[in-house]
Amino acid sequence: MMTLSISTGSRREMKDVTAKLNRLVAEAKVKEGLLVAYVPHTTAGITINENADPDVPRDILAHLEKLVPPDGPYRHAEGNSDAHIQAGLIGSSVTLIVDDTRLVLGTWQSVFFCEFDGPRNRKLQVEVIAAS
Amino acid sequence: MMTLSISTGSRREMKDVTAKLNRLVAEAKVKEGLLVAYVPHTTAGITINENADPDVPRDILAHLEKLVPPDGPYRHAEGNSDAHIQAGLIGSSVTLIVDDTRLVLGTWQSVFFCEFDGPRNRKLQVEVIAAS
Amino acid sequence: MMTLSISTGSRREMKDVTAKLNRLVAEAKVKEGLLVAYVPHTTAGITINENADPDVPRDILAHLEKLVPPDGPYRHAEGNSDAHIQAGLIGSSVTLIVDDTRLVLGTWQSVFFCEFDGPRNRKLQVEVIAAS
Repeated sequence: MMTLSISTGSRREMKDVTAKLNRLVAEAKVKEGLLVAYVPHTTAGITINENADPDVPRDILAHLEKLVPPDGPYRHAEGNSDAHIQAGLIGSSVTLIVDDTRLVLGTWQSVFFCEFDGPRNRKLQVEVIAAS
Repeated sequence: MMTLSISTGSRREMKDVTAKLNRLVAEAKVKEGLLVAYVPHTTAGITINENADPDVPRDILAHLEKLVPPDGPYRHAEGNSDAHIQAGLIGSSVTLIVDDTRLVLGTWQSVFFCEFDGPRNRKLQVEVIAAS
Repeated sequence: MMTLSISTGSRREMKDVTAKLNRLVAEAKVKEGLLVAYVPHTTAGITINENADPDVPRDILAHLEKLVPPDGPYRHAEGNSDAHIQAGLIGSSVTLIVDDTRLVLGTWQSVFFCEFDGPRNRKLQVEVIAAS
């Protein structure tokens, strides 16, 4: 298992980690298999979407906030229930295919670490599995 | 593949299955790899979040109900479209990393079986894969 | 890695790909392991739900449109932010267990490719991993 450190700069932010994951796959020397990137936090998530236009992650964050507003009403007393719920909707891991020693990503796809309750120092755990 | 039996007690419920998964990993004797927990149902799901404060899963369930209310309007005649849609938002499986023969979970993370149309007797299918 | 071609016929559509995945697993001759089906697009996703009653996928699509309406307000100028956001909520991949050379699916489960910005010619990337 490998561990990436991710430092986020605001309460809510989608941070592109594609280049970091590509580097890990190159080091892992797995010809064909899977990469799992796992977020060990309950107020952050990880997702795949377009980054060519930065308005796409902006729209995603803005719409998640509309669906799950910061001010509830919620029972959890820490004041970050919106972040827990958004993490649940986005998910704690992504699974990517490794083919010919490279991550398989569509032309417009980037992998985003999703901070919902920052700024914080976060971890991203990565495992690469060979196909046979 | 291993199969866990999960018995739910109300229509909507998040049930902590972390201890059960930890036990399976200990038995599997895989040093490093992945664990996939898969829900073979269409009105239940599985997710990872905080359980230190039980208000967190309560807020998640309450907010999912606000986003996807039980009384539609829906076309599916069985009266449980809310459960199907909530299962789609939460997802049918989680993938966890196994490192040093243990599940990698963040300090505040628990794995929850999510019942959206109980009470029922449910199954959770579990597969553990070694890294090499 | 194997690649399926998926042709969608309308802007938003859930297309059952279960039979195609079953065929790939039969060809892969893996006795026990995982199958990952990965969508290399940012305005489409993949999910698991019921197809016995076609009103279930209809309700899912209709409710996603209610949660994420086509007409914003959004900043992304291409007019398909709803599709990007819905893809983020549904997810880019599903992970299934292979047991005894067959996909493990519950009685009512089908795997759906989810088109949110069609009609288009799409790809679905599939990797099968043996358990040991």
